[in-house]
Amino acid sequence: MITIEEALEIVLKETKVLGFETVNILNSLNKVLAEDIYSKDNLPPFDKSAMDGYAIISDDTENASEEKPVKLKIKGTIKAGDFYKGQLKCGEALKIMTGAPVPNGADAVIQIENVEADNEEVAIFNPVEKNKNILNLGEEIKKGDIALLSGMTIRPSEIGLMASLGFSSAKVFKVPKMIVITTGDELIDVSEELISGKIRDCNGYSLMALGKNLQADVKFYGIVRDDMDVLFKKMQEAFEEGDIIITSGGVSAGDYDFVENCLKELGADIKFSSVAIKPGKPFTFAKYKDKLFFGLPGNPLAVINTFEQFVSPAAKKMMGKSDIHNKQFKVILGEDFKSVKGRTNYVYVNIEEKDGIYYAYKVGSQSSNQLLTISKANGIIILDKEMVKAGEEVNGRFIFK
Amino acid sequence: MITIEEALEIVLKETKVLGFETVNILNSLNKVLAEDIYSKDNLPPFDKSAMDGYAIISDDTENASEEKPVKLKIKGTIKAGDFYKGQLKCGEALKIMTGAPVPNGADAVIQIENVEADNEEVAIFNPVEKNKNILNLGEEIKKGDIALLSGMTIRPSEIGLMASLGFSSAKVFKVPKMIVITTGDELIDVSEELISGKIRDCNGYSLMALGKNLQADVKFYGIVRDDMDVLFKKMQEAFEEGDIIITSGGVSAGDYDFVENCLKELGADIKFSSVAIKPGKPFTFAKYKDKLFFGLPGNPLAVINTFEQFVSPAAKKMMGKSDIHNKQFKVILGEDFKSVKGRTNYVYVNIEEKDGIYYAYKVGSQSSNQLLTISKANGIIILDKEMVKAGEEVNGRFIFK
Repeated sequence: MITIEEALEIVLKETKVLGFETVNILNSLNKVLAEDIYSKDNLPPFDKSAMDGYAIISDDTENASEEKPVKLKIKGTIKAGDFYKGQLKCGEALKIMTGAPVPNGADAVIQIENVEADNEEVAIFNPVEKNKNILNLGEEIKKGDIALLSGMTIRPSEIGLMASLGFSSAKVFKVPKMIVITTGDELIDVSEELISGKIRDCNGYSLMALGKNLQADVKFYGIVRDDMDVLFKKMQEAFEEGDIIITSGGVSAGDYDFVENCLKELGADIKFSSVAIKPGKPFTFAKYKDKLFFGLPGNPLAVINTFEQFVSPAAKKMMGKSDIHNKQFKVILGEDFKSVKGRTNYVYVNIEEKDGIYYAYKVGSQSSNQLLTISKANGIIILDKEMVKAGEEVNGRFIFK
Repeated sequence: MITIEEALEIVLKETKVLGFETVNILNSLNKVLAEDIYSKDNLPPFDKSAMDGYAIISDDTENASEEKPVKLKIKGTIKAGDFYKGQLKCGEALKIMTGAPVPNGADAVIQIENVEADNEEVAIFNPVEKNKNILNLGEEIKKGDIALLSGMTIRPSEIGLMASLGFSSAKVFKVPKMIVITTGDELIDVSEELISGKIRDCNGYSLMALGKNLQADVKFYGIVRDDMDVLFKKMQEAFEEGDIIITSGGVSAGDYDFVENCLKELGADIKFSSVAIKPGKPFTFAKYKDKLFFGLPGNPLAVINTFEQFVSPAAKKMMGKSDIHNKQFKVILGEDFKSVKGRTNYVYVNIEEKDGIYYAYKVGSQSSNQLLTISKANGIIILDKEMVKAGEEVNGRFIFK
């Protein structure tokens, strides 16, 4: 049985970044940019007024004062989106709106709040500096300058920036196609009647939601009965279609745990089939034709735990993310905790922050099929010894982050 | 001009939670549950084996020892999903798989690893406690017990739990329909050629992405020219269709800033039209028939800033979220910063953590149309005085969280 750290290292070593695809910029949100983006234009593409006011020649205002204001003749108005073809001459002004191109000849804009004007003339009471309230051509970015670097995760601001630079699509890393299969004769779908000996499949739903949260392209192959031939066919199909294949159940030592046999018959390379993690020990990882296989346990809590610990970092690496690890921090135990010897115990807890310090409190039974427990938890603490006392410091992290 | 705090208070006072809708549990992910969920069954619905092993009568093993093992006759196998109709009698055992129902008569399961067995008999070397390795009927949750509380945000574990309880759909708070309109004669779409006096519309894209990140149902009405009649018609249509209506541009003091006039003509209740925030001062908020109107400025950085500060908390409140405020924390300035008097300055920075302490560093010009700045930033610091020095402590937060 290998440790969690060893298992994660093997998983990530076998995980390769998927290819690229070109998508509409809106569909690139939260994906990873796979190309450097250079500006195709100067931005702003012209000298632009930063204010509503009057475009003027600054030298005209050199001697302006409260006592002796300079009066300029208003030649017209430039709206944003207009382009004034004439040339401003000494003694003239043009009313100008925010975002409008500064006319030829003008070298400053005076704010509307700082003048007095009628339809004919504008009075200016102070000298205006050259270039005042003008955003110069290329001041934001010059043609050929780099705007965004490959490898960054695209946020709303980057989508806006790409649009302003004229990019309607972007090259991004592909998201993995994730195939989910749940196994077991005892499973029925949520909509079926609960008859003797059966339980409702919850792992299919948990896994689809976990994959959806990662932006993966998730497909559920449904519940597969404990039948070697049927499972083999489904797994073969999954390896054709998916980048990540996930099963739940069928991986303990029982007579009807077929997953490992199917992997062997397929010729998959089984890297390990047991990890010192609780919940989640019977966990199989295999590789087949560059596809990753995760054979998760059947217990609902173990499914979520092993997904977050192993599948999530692998999926993030596939889609080019650099920040793939769950962020851990120090947590002080609010009460005593017990754990199981010989495995690293992930105990689902409620983590509360007080004055920048995190404290962990129990939320209920840790029995591995209690989804009810996790529904009350916001984090886990990681325990390596059997008894830990209130006040001790351990590592922890938030879940579903 | 009102403060940011006053503005946010007014916005939230006018914001009402939207109604409910019933959706498939998979589509409830990250939405807010709008009903308490009670279990319709006992879970597990039968006494269930927690291990692969042998179902036995514990009294049979009372005198078992290494020297004198107890031998029980194997009557058959119960797979998960099977239901054994017979009754186990003294001296008998049934092989049982994890998850299978414990047969009548049996009161314990001994793990497969702790026995020796052939096809006929199983040898047991130690007394087995009553109830060992059995998950009793209703041990996880009893029929009628509460499972999930209204008001909680649904995560993958809650989706799994609802599936296990037989709920294929859930009642959740509706997400807002968000209508985005960008205004200005200077704007052209990303795919159009950049001709004299024009700039590409980026705000439409930023706003669509910001809305998408909030799970809102976003619709872009496109770029509207500076024409009072056209804008009026579009806004009227938007108030019919949307819960939140957002415009960008058209809200400063210019002659072609029609947004406020349109609101007046519609009869909307304008609550304020200027906030002491930089970037983002010319910001209009209005209410009309329970719909919220946000008139954002035209500057790209101001658009993102005011969306995060005002639109985002309102949208979250509409969809029933309890945690609607951006989480602030203390940040130490890594260098000197300047800001503008009379307004609360949101300066886009890079926040780095060292040993649990956050430090802020400059990322570039704060000129309000530089999306390039924000693309290098991961947070903001909030400055209320003109000069702040390296080493001073201010409030800050991460952006796009």
